Amino acid sequence: MDKNVPLVVVRRLPRYYRYLSDLEEMGIERVSSQVLSKKLGFTASQVRQDLNCFGGFGQQGYGYNVKMLRDEISKILGLDKCYKIVIIGAGNLGRAILNYPGFTKRGFRFVGIFDQDESLIGKSVGDLTIKGMDELEVFCEEEKPDIGALAIPKGTTDEVAKKLEALGIKGIWNFSHIEVTSAVPVETVHLSDSLMTLAYRISEEEEEE
Amino acid sequence: MDKNVPLVVVRRLPRYYRYLSDLEEMGIERVSSQVLSKKLGFTASQVRQDLNCFGGFGQQGYGYNVKMLRDEISKILGLDKCYKIVIIGAGNLGRAILNYPGFTKRGFRFVGIFDQDESLIGKSVGDLTIKGMDELEVFCEEEKPDIGALAIPKGTTDEVAKKLEALGIKGIWNFSHIEVTSAVPVETVHLSDSLMTLAYRISEEEEEE
Repeated sequence: MDKNVPLVVVRRLPRYYRYLSDLEEMGIERVSSQVLSKKLGFTASQVRQDLNCFGGFGQQGYGYNVKMLRDEISKILGLDKCYKIVIIGAGNLGRAILNYPGFTKRGFRFVGIFDQDESLIGKSVGDLTIKGMDELEVFCEEEKPDIGALAIPKGTTDEVAKKLEALGIKGIWNFSHIEVTSAVPVETVHLSDSLMTLAYRISEEEEEE
Repeated sequence: MDKNVPLVVVRRLPRYYRYLSDLEEMGIERVSSQVLSKKLGFTASQVRQDLNCFGGFGQQGYGYNVKMLRDEISKILGLDKCYKIVIIGAGNLGRAILNYPGFTKRGFRFVGIFDQDESLIGKSVGDLTIKGMDELEVFCEEEKPDIGALAIPKGTTDEVAKKLEALGIKGIWNFSHIEVTSAVPVETVHLSDSLMTLAYRISEEEEEE
């Protein structure tokens, strides 16, 4: 596998992965770059180029083997491993992330949820009990979580990120609306991006009418 | 403006918009395609190509005027209009969306939140009171919301989408983890995509060590 796969290609892989998983569940064995292109909204040549980055699993005229391609993308994304996630922030957002379906089957496991709000500490969310921030250090030493999910809407994000980093966290999944600077990889979820795209599509439809 | 801007380009625009807004807030007046490229992770030629789709606001050697470009992208995305959003589902996810900061300044306004759970109806979330699903029809006739946000984790999504469509909703913002089929534009939020990208970046860093 080419180590220098551009991040922009990597960011497209989850969409391939999701669609290929759907195809596999439907029992479909092969798929062409044309179909992948149409379903995912990339050009067919981009699809071929993307998949060639990882060695190319397609055969001219036969398309791609769905299961092989899905398994390979899964391996490339690192989904064949297991990741422990700790959530910081037990408000609506933190709880929503914890209850969001579909993470477990991709190898992600929520192991802890923390908040500084005294009134939340000790309460149950799913299978977990909300812990106070002063318990975070001992918890990380024992559980060794891989990923910290920041579900704290404003302020203190950089401080918490630094703390997690010092406690051995390997990556930060940032829901906090503010960019986080960290020595470990950070992926920020921007909910408004999809809403802006939707606004565009709505205004476009209105112009066509 | 070219009406046939590919959706894949449109999906990149919110990222330009966010970054240009940041630059504007910092008082920066001009930006080169190289800087945009580096910050956004697109190639410089892709940046030039993307922005040319909309008429091209750059001057050779001078870069782009931040404010003009931001305003133009805002107009293209339809952010100069106001959109009323109704949320279906008042669980953690629905409440988290309602409380998520930064939507208002982009012209989005939450006007209602609905749930079928009797124990939630009548409770307050932010400035809104949770209403029952049987009130949705009258509400839509009076308020005429533009966007329906689906924050119902499983089942009934297609049914609710059809209902919203019949009540005049122009677009669906789908958080439900399941693809929704509708005659109006649908944008689905896949939280797991960013998590999968993060997993890749973590496993890549580990290989490098």
